[in-house]
Amino acid sequence: MIRFGLLGAGRIGRIHGLNVAARSDARLVSVADASEEAARNLARAAGAGVSTIEAILGDSGIDAVLICTPTDMHADLIEAASRAGKAVFCEKPVDLDAGRIRRCLEVVSASGKPLMIGFNRRFDPNFAALHRRLHAGEIGAVEIVSVISRDPGPPPVDYVKRSGGLFRDMMIHDFDMARFLLGEEPVEVYALGSSLVDPAIGEAGDVDTAAVLMKTRSGKIAQISNSRRATYGYDQRIEVHGSGGMLRAGNIHETSVESATGQGFRADPVQNFFLERYAAAYRIELETFIAAIQSGHAPSPSGLDGLKAQILADAATNSWKTGKPVAVTLD
Amino acid sequence: MIRFGLLGAGRIGRIHGLNVAARSDARLVSVADASEEAARNLARAAGAGVSTIEAILGDSGIDAVLICTPTDMHADLIEAASRAGKAVFCEKPVDLDAGRIRRCLEVVSASGKPLMIGFNRRFDPNFAALHRRLHAGEIGAVEIVSVISRDPGPPPVDYVKRSGGLFRDMMIHDFDMARFLLGEEPVEVYALGSSLVDPAIGEAGDVDTAAVLMKTRSGKIAQISNSRRATYGYDQRIEVHGSGGMLRAGNIHETSVESATGQGFRADPVQNFFLERYAAAYRIELETFIAAIQSGHAPSPSGLDGLKAQILADAATNSWKTGKPVAVTLD
Amino acid sequence: MIRFGLLGAGRIGRIHGLNVAARSDARLVSVADASEEAARNLARAAGAGVSTIEAILGDSGIDAVLICTPTDMHADLIEAASRAGKAVFCEKPVDLDAGRIRRCLEVVSASGKPLMIGFNRRFDPNFAALHRRLHAGEIGAVEIVSVISRDPGPPPVDYVKRSGGLFRDMMIHDFDMARFLLGEEPVEVYALGSSLVDPAIGEAGDVDTAAVLMKTRSGKIAQISNSRRATYGYDQRIEVHGSGGMLRAGNIHETSVESATGQGFRADPVQNFFLERYAAAYRIELETFIAAIQSGHAPSPSGLDGLKAQILADAATNSWKTGKPVAVTLD
Amino acid sequence: MIRFGLLGAGRIGRIHGLNVAARSDARLVSVADASEEAARNLARAAGAGVSTIEAILGDSGIDAVLICTPTDMHADLIEAASRAGKAVFCEKPVDLDAGRIRRCLEVVSASGKPLMIGFNRRFDPNFAALHRRLHAGEIGAVEIVSVISRDPGPPPVDYVKRSGGLFRDMMIHDFDMARFLLGEEPVEVYALGSSLVDPAIGEAGDVDTAAVLMKTRSGKIAQISNSRRATYGYDQRIEVHGSGGMLRAGNIHETSVESATGQGFRADPVQNFFLERYAAAYRIELETFIAAIQSGHAPSPSGLDGLKAQILADAATNSWKTGKPVAVTLD
Repeated sequence: MIRFGLLGAGRIGRIHGLNVAARSDARLVSVADASEEAARNLARAAGAGVSTIEAILGDSGIDAVLICTPTDMHADLIEAASRAGKAVFCEKPVDLDAGRIRRCLEVVSASGKPLMIGFNRRFDPNFAALHRRLHAGEIGAVEIVSVISRDPGPPPVDYVKRSGGLFRDMMIHDFDMARFLLGEEPVEVYALGSSLVDPAIGEAGDVDTAAVLMKTRSGKIAQISNSRRATYGYDQRIEVHGSGGMLRAGNIHETSVESATGQGFRADPVQNFFLERYAAAYRIELETFIAAIQSGHAPSPSGLDGLKAQILADAATNSWKTGKPVAVTLD
Repeated sequence: MIRFGLLGAGRIGRIHGLNVAARSDARLVSVADASEEAARNLARAAGAGVSTIEAILGDSGIDAVLICTPTDMHADLIEAASRAGKAVFCEKPVDLDAGRIRRCLEVVSASGKPLMIGFNRRFDPNFAALHRRLHAGEIGAVEIVSVISRDPGPPPVDYVKRSGGLFRDMMIHDFDMARFLLGEEPVEVYALGSSLVDPAIGEAGDVDTAAVLMKTRSGKIAQISNSRRATYGYDQRIEVHGSGGMLRAGNIHETSVESATGQGFRADPVQNFFLERYAAAYRIELETFIAAIQSGHAPSPSGLDGLKAQILADAATNSWKTGKPVAVTLD
Repeated sequence: MIRFGLLGAGRIGRIHGLNVAARSDARLVSVADASEEAARNLARAAGAGVSTIEAILGDSGIDAVLICTPTDMHADLIEAASRAGKAVFCEKPVDLDAGRIRRCLEVVSASGKPLMIGFNRRFDPNFAALHRRLHAGEIGAVEIVSVISRDPGPPPVDYVKRSGGLFRDMMIHDFDMARFLLGEEPVEVYALGSSLVDPAIGEAGDVDTAAVLMKTRSGKIAQISNSRRATYGYDQRIEVHGSGGMLRAGNIHETSVESATGQGFRADPVQNFFLERYAAAYRIELETFIAAIQSGHAPSPSGLDGLKAQILADAATNSWKTGKPVAVTLD
Repeated sequence: MIRFGLLGAGRIGRIHGLNVAARSDARLVSVADASEEAARNLARAAGAGVSTIEAILGDSGIDAVLICTPTDMHADLIEAASRAGKAVFCEKPVDLDAGRIRRCLEVVSASGKPLMIGFNRRFDPNFAALHRRLHAGEIGAVEIVSVISRDPGPPPVDYVKRSGGLFRDMMIHDFDMARFLLGEEPVEVYALGSSLVDPAIGEAGDVDTAAVLMKTRSGKIAQISNSRRATYGYDQRIEVHGSGGMLRAGNIHETSVESATGQGFRADPVQNFFLERYAAAYRIELETFIAAIQSGHAPSPSGLDGLKAQILADAATNSWKTGKPVAVTLD
């Protein structure tokens, strides 16, 4: 029985907290949030108590913490929790600054405690099955990895301003997915970005439409395509072209219903909301974290995976700003 | 807060019991099963107590019972529970004998208590969406309803022998679905049946492959096609042809992954297990039952729906045996 | 080089005539039609001459005739052409009367000349590939054959009146397809029919919506579903369920374009016109006829196939009228 | 009646020659080829005569020429034919050198005669329908254009050596398609290329796997992905993401047959051969050229379209070699 403390009871904290509560091999002990009401609501639904961050980190009855606070608290909390001897699961990103991440990971490393980063998409059953089949050699050697991510709609400009920019806030998931699928580290990143969806995003110094090309040392290619707006839902697709064929995982439609009329055949939009689209992924992600704690094996994706995705996001941001490809060293 | 007693802790009882336990507006109070171990296991997982049928029916703190026992106990338990003032949810069928169902429904009617029958497929989000759009007039008047149901594999012959036969055991779901979609009662049933999957099923006096045609008074047509074996999974499809177009709901594949090689493009088999395929349906079914209790409105599908499906199953069995179409009166 | 005469320069005659003209191993020599203008137009387009039926049948330089006249001339012309020593291709049906077909086939048989009947759908590349794979054992033993045929819109009532009725005019293609796929002759036919599309069709004594169930001696089942109207195009689907899996051939959409918007994902209607949908089938059908003439092997589908489909159509008509299944003997 | 001369009777010349022969508004008069046998075979099949390039250009009875010779003769022949007063259709590319193309187009311009370049994919009915709907505003403003082209297998290295390289030989079609769909000229090109399919291609100084990113002045983005090998057929897909939704055109499978077994659902590979995949495109392309001659309107795609695609291909080659994005000016 792993005993959990939850730091942050917002949208994603609630998901993780309820997923802990639904398990028989884990228990949600305490919830802390700046909003006591948010903490109390979730604690009630999950059969947990309300507490503070300090108390949770100091509670020797708590084995593991889930960090779901605002991004700017992540690195500090990871360090504090590791030092307090807790296993740590932290939502991406560790920090918007790669240097800060490096220092944080050193603290974690010194603590000897496990750290797992919340790249939830690796645990989507569709993407995980694709990855498994890819690594089993079903289509031979990987040659071209394509990732398409398009959000249903753009976030508020206030959010954009403190997000670190599209490459760090949104495309970071795709950098992780590209690494996951390539099986070899990128050595160069080239990025294009535009503000086509909402001019206010451009005025805030960010982009809402972007594409990236990366190559690995042996010449494998990754393409990433992002938009902050897709009228037809939350567009999440991956495709890998290999020496022996192709593997892809498509979108999940709201229902399997199809109509046919004089206007043609119509299927539903794709699932619109990331918490719905990735509900199973969040459950399996937590299960994987618990299994890692139980087995004593290092969890994956690791803090290092978080750092590498951040370095790629930094490189893409840099490439977009300078108009030039940017070399990276991840090995 | 609706307080539930569960009669029968087998495979389907477990689903319903855990679904109750996961809700905040309902509580599973007690579980009864001939196997005390089964009852205890489920009670533990659901935070309930273990009890007996008699005690549950006599417990004034219990508002509603879920009847998930073997079929031959259904009618007696429905009557006893109604008389005890409980709202009743009972798995299909009420009984294998239509006369027995009629008498049972009279007892329920006299009790004034709600009875809902577990035709779970009506609550599948795909089929429910199709039904909603159909009744909103999206494809005009209904003309041809087609239902395809194929199980992954045949049941043991021992089960077949006491099942009432394919038409009553398996196709009964499709009779209910056809009625649900037709919006008008069938007046005639013609059935073909063969034993092509397992000769032992034929020797036991039953069929494993069957097809039915039904027509309504105004000339609408329903086609049903059943097999006890589909190598590619649990095949569950509906299609309605109307004056303005067509609506259909297809199968759910295990994942959205597709591969492409020299052998072509390959998608996953469809979900293989009815408890997985209809997991959402069971949740929504229970939610619907609870909402009916709370609102005081009669639940649907009702006991009468259970009776009518049984009459159609009887007619089909009769048609198969005599080789002639059989008239039915459901209005 | 096979030299052809064409009897009948209507819509379907034009297709066959131009297909002959496009080949290097065949030549269209003469065209005859009651409308000299129709004959002249086609003759010009195909590089052929205009002639009369009598002259074509009497022309020793003509090896083969294509009979594309109105149905009521088919049997007489088949007989006359066979007696004149021509290889004969005749559009379905040979005649609306099975007795007349039998006498006609005796004349053909006595002539020793080949006769092929225009069940074009057997030559559709999709259906032909399905048939080939089925007979190669890809899904084991055939158990359930399903055929769905829905026309884009109903024919004029005048046509309906002299058509022999839906079962003989429209479903006859599906009877042939069912036989083609079953690999075993039906022994019983049950039919339902309604007039739901156009009341005038009902008033003319025919149906516009129909479904049939057939079984073979060993218990294989065939389902056929017809409507005279499908708003989304010319709906032509086949599916075979077997002991080892399922094979199906779907509709052909007008283009491969798909759009996605807030209303969902939209694909084109299916090809609307039978001459477009089956353009390749008509070409391959002719090629098959020519190959049969060249090789001296009996062409398929044969006159007997035409007779058997007619017997099934008669049985279905009879079943619809009497409300009872009708036994047939085709072996 | 447009009278045609054909220069070059190879694989693609044969397609165009037979397409001319099949029309009623055009006639193939003469065929010239370095191989007299090739010329004679095609001439016979198309009802044309055999001649020489000089004689065809000097024949006042010939209105238009189709240039299907090796690439290094294209520019000279276009100039000679234009000067001889012929309408010219020339296969892509005009030349591997953009300067040479410019001089050639000046000659054409001075002649006042029409020149059309064979970017056949614009005429594919699927891609043309997508383009039409895009320009009708169905998905609002264009934001991201994606083109995927993968050949079934790599060409011989001898061909690669004189091809101008993948970007000029293969991706040139995709540059044209990207321009066709973007509706705005690219201003910058970045290319990645690798030799992953056949090391001999790399040794010959070329790539067999490549990806390109382009942007337009207003910030629209185009992504192109190429491989010289796809085990599942000739992979040809386009997708446009716009402010109001998405439009895409997928691959064409060999048949519509689908099987389902314990291994899942299997559809056919996609059409494998470009002459089959684009058969309709070649017919419509020729029809468009003829219509342009008849109407006196300038044909499209024009010589300038040929030049612009070449400039993009040059820029991509340059980008791949230098590792830097390359600015282009096409307006």
